[in-house]
Amino acid sequence: MTGRIKDETELIQTYLAPLAAGAPGAFGLKDDAALILTEPGFDLVVSTDPIIAGVHFFGDDDPRDIAWKALAVNVSDLAAKGTEPIAYTMALAFPDAPQRDWMAGFSAGLLEAQQAFGCTLIGGDTDRTPGPLSIAITAFGKVPRGQMVTRGGARIGDHVFVTGTLGDSALGLKLRRAPAVSSAPLDTGAREFLIDRYLRPQPRLEMALLLRRYASAALDISDGLVKDAARLAEGAGAGLRITFEKLPLSVAAEAACAADLGLKATIVTGGDDFEILFAVPPDRRTDFCDAAAKLTVTATEIGVLAVGNGVTLTALNGAPIEITLDGYDHFRGN
Amino acid sequence: MTGRIKDETELIQTYLAPLAAGAPGAFGLKDDAALILTEPGFDLVVSTDPIIAGVHFFGDDDPRDIAWKALAVNVSDLAAKGTEPIAYTMALAFPDAPQRDWMAGFSAGLLEAQQAFGCTLIGGDTDRTPGPLSIAITAFGKVPRGQMVTRGGARIGDHVFVTGTLGDSALGLKLRRAPAVSSAPLDTGAREFLIDRYLRPQPRLEMALLLRRYASAALDISDGLVKDAARLAEGAGAGLRITFEKLPLSVAAEAACAADLGLKATIVTGGDDFEILFAVPPDRRTDFCDAAAKLTVTATEIGVLAVGNGVTLTALNGAPIEITLDGYDHFRGN
Repeated sequence: MTGRIKDETELIQTYLAPLAAGAPGAFGLKDDAALILTEPGFDLVVSTDPIIAGVHFFGDDDPRDIAWKALAVNVSDLAAKGTEPIAYTMALAFPDAPQRDWMAGFSAGLLEAQQAFGCTLIGGDTDRTPGPLSIAITAFGKVPRGQMVTRGGARIGDHVFVTGTLGDSALGLKLRRAPAVSSAPLDTGAREFLIDRYLRPQPRLEMALLLRRYASAALDISDGLVKDAARLAEGAGAGLRITFEKLPLSVAAEAACAADLGLKATIVTGGDDFEILFAVPPDRRTDFCDAAAKLTVTATEIGVLAVGNGVTLTALNGAPIEITLDGYDHFRGN
Repeated sequence: MTGRIKDETELIQTYLAPLAAGAPGAFGLKDDAALILTEPGFDLVVSTDPIIAGVHFFGDDDPRDIAWKALAVNVSDLAAKGTEPIAYTMALAFPDAPQRDWMAGFSAGLLEAQQAFGCTLIGGDTDRTPGPLSIAITAFGKVPRGQMVTRGGARIGDHVFVTGTLGDSALGLKLRRAPAVSSAPLDTGAREFLIDRYLRPQPRLEMALLLRRYASAALDISDGLVKDAARLAEGAGAGLRITFEKLPLSVAAEAACAADLGLKATIVTGGDDFEILFAVPPDRRTDFCDAAAKLTVTATEIGVLAVGNGVTLTALNGAPIEITLDGYDHFRGN
């Protein structure tokens, strides 16, 4: 069928209930609440990170990509806490009754994401809003009792690592907004890679087990490396010096930066990386590196927590790199 | 201090973190995720019900009332499931950086509500939005294992009850929109009562324990009696005949209805009652009524689930009352 959905029942039962199939606590999305099945010996971890059209995604993005991102940004938080995703609730607010083909795509994107991340929809809410489309997911994960990795557990002397590569998503956002990233010449493959990194964040669930075993603190990078590294350092009562040239960049981001030095600031403050930033104590560093070498995702050491405070960014020759803004803040000019 | 908050840190640490004080899983709202402390022998129940300015409340309502309502509508779902609230997360989306005095009022309203309901803030998220103010709370409750009261557990022959009085909030909304409820003459006390019922829903937590003991099914009335009663009846594969004159109405609602018969439809379909609708099997009815008589909230029997389907509304003389709309639906004309 085409056209707009006719009521809440169609919206929920046709497009959302299949995502809850087999989840015993979801009651087929026919109840006002859901049961979260907890296991003895495990803690339950919760994270909520809504996404809003015009803020976190474009209203005309493919609904499959919007759905993927809505769940991925929440699962990314769970991964950074060393947690295994189990379930999520979702509150949807639509400016108009959605089109059926849009809902079919959205539902397919969620199914793809929940299969990739290992969790199911268990409940939620649907509303009309005078504002833009908003997707508010609250995600639940389990972790062996007492083993959630916090943001505040690092200490001076701990080694700081980051997964994957930085800045791709921020450059992808620039490309999504306009066909050129500044004046940088990029081939089609590089452009598609960067845009995909913006549209389809990859939660680093593969790293979760190692974080539980080896990390003293961790968080995912959503507001840019500089701001989130400052949070990690603050939690340790420490400072962190980062050398830009030692940061892990993709080939595409390297090419963009080489052509336009101004993009360095975008890479370290743009946000939406959804990589994990974490600290490993010195006595666990070797074992961690050995274990991490077996993963498909890379982990790169970017510095050591030292006496001091805040984050200093320098070039290879030690010269400071000026960053006018230290990261994304919704309530300040960015 | 007056003026607008300057950044996310001020918003969270000054106005929200105090609401999480003492909650061990909240990490002072300085982490990206929270721990929900579960207890052996209990199930964890989750419900999410966002409220949006211009849809569920007025942007110029007192921020204390907005905050109360944001939490109360979620706790109402938990109460209807026989659940005891323990914690909540909250995702806030502001059209502009909020004023400090507004945030102080909002925070005070949340504190009042969480003290009344027995739960604490443990995490959340803050965003700017091009749309209206939105408050998306996800609330968590605990219930002895296997005792959550579902929507679908009622059977033919079960007696249907409702807490409190119906339609007050829908009439209060009419008064909030315009100074008169249709042509009905109401004194100041009645007007204030109805508006307060709209602004400050009272979750019927007092009933939760009895629901666990005696109810076969329950849900809170948020979309109007007719629509929510149809959900209860559908879960039982049954029909329900309701006599309007036997519904529990407040003195103020009685007065409004007596002056304007058209308000009957508002009362049974207007929604936002946040009373609990529930079914009690015949063999538990007497014990339930004895136990309920000791509560401060009233429980009124409004019918018996019978062979058939859907909800029929009649007058005392048996004549059907026509309801053109069967309840609130965000995606259909209302």
